[in-house]
Amino acid sequence: MNKFTEDTITAIATPSGVGAISVIRVSGPLSFEIADKIFKGKIRLTDSSTHTIHYGQIFDENDVLVDDVLISVFRNPHSYTGEDSVEISTHCNPLISKKIIDLLLKNGTRLAEPGEFTKRAYLNDKLDLVQAEAVADVISSRTDASLRGARNQLNGLLSKKVDELRNSLINASSFVELELDFAEEDVEFINLGDLMNRVRTIENEIDLLLKSYNFGKVIKEGVNVALVGKPNVGKSSLLNYILKESRAIVSHIPGTTRDIIREDVSIDGIMFRLYDTAGIRISEDIIEKEGVLRSRKAVKDADLVILINDVDQGKSEDLLNEISSLINSNRILSILNKIDLGMTGLDDYDVKISALTGEGIESLFRKMKEKALGTSNYTEKSAVVSNSRHFDCLRKAKESLGKVKNSIENKMSGEFIAVDLRKAIDDLGEIVGIVTSEDILNNIFTKFCIGK
Amino acid sequence: MNKFTEDTITAIATPSGVGAISVIRVSGPLSFEIADKIFKGKIRLTDSSTHTIHYGQIFDENDVLVDDVLISVFRNPHSYTGEDSVEISTHCNPLISKKIIDLLLKNGTRLAEPGEFTKRAYLNDKLDLVQAEAVADVISSRTDASLRGARNQLNGLLSKKVDELRNSLINASSFVELELDFAEEDVEFINLGDLMNRVRTIENEIDLLLKSYNFGKVIKEGVNVALVGKPNVGKSSLLNYILKESRAIVSHIPGTTRDIIREDVSIDGIMFRLYDTAGIRISEDIIEKEGVLRSRKAVKDADLVILINDVDQGKSEDLLNEISSLINSNRILSILNKIDLGMTGLDDYDVKISALTGEGIESLFRKMKEKALGTSNYTEKSAVVSNSRHFDCLRKAKESLGKVKNSIENKMSGEFIAVDLRKAIDDLGEIVGIVTSEDILNNIFTKFCIGK
Repeated sequence: MNKFTEDTITAIATPSGVGAISVIRVSGPLSFEIADKIFKGKIRLTDSSTHTIHYGQIFDENDVLVDDVLISVFRNPHSYTGEDSVEISTHCNPLISKKIIDLLLKNGTRLAEPGEFTKRAYLNDKLDLVQAEAVADVISSRTDASLRGARNQLNGLLSKKVDELRNSLINASSFVELELDFAEEDVEFINLGDLMNRVRTIENEIDLLLKSYNFGKVIKEGVNVALVGKPNVGKSSLLNYILKESRAIVSHIPGTTRDIIREDVSIDGIMFRLYDTAGIRISEDIIEKEGVLRSRKAVKDADLVILINDVDQGKSEDLLNEISSLINSNRILSILNKIDLGMTGLDDYDVKISALTGEGIESLFRKMKEKALGTSNYTEKSAVVSNSRHFDCLRKAKESLGKVKNSIENKMSGEFIAVDLRKAIDDLGEIVGIVTSEDILNNIFTKFCIGK
Repeated sequence: MNKFTEDTITAIATPSGVGAISVIRVSGPLSFEIADKIFKGKIRLTDSSTHTIHYGQIFDENDVLVDDVLISVFRNPHSYTGEDSVEISTHCNPLISKKIIDLLLKNGTRLAEPGEFTKRAYLNDKLDLVQAEAVADVISSRTDASLRGARNQLNGLLSKKVDELRNSLINASSFVELELDFAEEDVEFINLGDLMNRVRTIENEIDLLLKSYNFGKVIKEGVNVALVGKPNVGKSSLLNYILKESRAIVSHIPGTTRDIIREDVSIDGIMFRLYDTAGIRISEDIIEKEGVLRSRKAVKDADLVILINDVDQGKSEDLLNEISSLINSNRILSILNKIDLGMTGLDDYDVKISALTGEGIESLFRKMKEKALGTSNYTEKSAVVSNSRHFDCLRKAKESLGKVKNSIENKMSGEFIAVDLRKAIDDLGEIVGIVTSEDILNNIFTKFCIGK
């Protein structure tokens, strides 16, 4: 079963901080043997059944009691990693966890690398690579929508789609390969027109996935929004109104005097990171040069800029021009505030609001979502791409399929077609981890936290 | 078994923060039934054996998957609380924990109060009151010594001692009570001289426990140390040397400009909280009035003041006088720094050191420990009192025994003796929780964290 049986690893699996219990994970062929060296319970862990819990004490090398614990036993292959493993539940105290980890290390385990438990789960076929990556996303999701997206990937929604496409290509490819094998005999196993249609269908499906990436990325990673406006246009009032209205303030990151203040809010499950450039005005680089640089950077890095104008001062064309020089103008929402004072002028704004009465705020939220998500029809039940690695693999697969189509059109030899088909199959296989390299794996799992 | 079967409670048991898994606890008569309403596994939890683990999924009211989880089943009385209970292990994400807690609440649990799981363990005779209190101490201990002290109490070292003394008193008391019952018949069940001896022996043991309180408190809570000295005596160098030398810097609490900087270090397992009054000189209240007030407060609140003098400037008698007006002089360590420059003068110091070469630092550490612990002979294996509630109960018991002795000496009626003996028995019973009130319990358990 295990492809990966060399060593036994350990790490704390629960967060540090104040709580009632901590859990230490141990996984690998010597899990029971090593745990038995430091644990005294009614029966030996080595002799106990899978999915059972054992109360007992952990003693250090001088036979001093470290803590009383509950140890959960999971026997290969019925564990998260697919290996023999135990979970030690202790009183929550970093001194206790550290001591137990030290004892485990002294008795033959080594400290797990970040994500190594999940990496082993992947290597032992408990999860494919998309699902393994989704574990990290499930943990780091900060809005309901991103969590549901990650949960869908962990459930295999995307994996299933990719597997389908890959199997369909393998099927097509097998006829091409067969024809190559019997090339001498001039038997036609597949009609080139049929092949072309198959490839086109698959290409269309890949296109749909590629197009879902913006949606997936926004759902997963959220949207950076820069709030820009001249003094007194009501930027702070708007920010406060949004914070109050969205009700889901995810976090408040206070800026020091020279930093840009950031507030994270969740609007319909999408995370908007609002960067308030208040007090540090673009186009007024007299007082705070450093501040202006930061503001310009916030605008450049934004997915969306909300330019706030007000009824009193009218449209700030100079600011709009300046922002347009930093960012694509379809990423700018130009809004008019203070409509409670009455509408003036004929200027064209994307939304008209009053941060005082709340009028128009719902439209503003709708526009922000539209700008962020585009006009996509994806729902959380669709297979959606949210990971740049998956996107790149799909792009490569599409490229290979383009070459296949080209070869068919130009009536090239079947060998050319076969090579590019195999390439596309591998590109898709790389997504779910059928084809992979140590580099890709390291790149994925080092981003995990230790203990996962 | 259960004295406490009304409702089923739930709370998160692991810290919040970044990690791999979180654990949610549920305890009470409906634990299995309620968990089964939101959980789909291979078999129902209601039908599963104690100390088994079950993999499955939790779904919300709209049948949307919340997470896949492992649920541990503990059947009454074989659980922490003594009640039926389950522990739900989820991917670590506050959104997931919150959703599952919400589902549990909707299905008939209520949120546990702080310490309520441990309170139930006490009410169901899984722990006595000293042990229950020790659970909180085990979790909050920040040095090895305090952790071992708390572990000893959790193991029942103090409880056993108190039970012994109490039983001995009950034994003595039973003879007195018997004599009262047969008062008419003039039978002597106990010799008053014998009773006096017994009471004295128990009183001596109580005295030993009372005397251990300073040791226990220092081990458990640590020592507040104020560092005081004129400019340029090398206060910062000394602080840095201590931080380097103790090697166990527990935490660094950076002060703002006007705050007093505090560094927590562990020396031989004892926590010393070093308050550096640097830059804010006592006796120079010209510039920073607020700062001087804080310095004086730090000195007043200190368990120990280290007054640093140096070879260049000699003994600062003025500072010493000023400190002596704020704190008992046996809490002052007057030390001489910079002895690497040569010894001068005949002044008398507690320790002579060089923060440059490290000479004398070990003596300083020894003196700091001596001043903090006194000349006690307690070891971590001794039954030691570290909790003010226990101290107060012992003091009350001693008082009652004083009255018993008085009554015996004055040949008072047996009824007087019996009343005070009963009182002393109750005082000791209050420590381990045989005699208690809802007020005492609330006072104890509200200091716990939720989930414990």
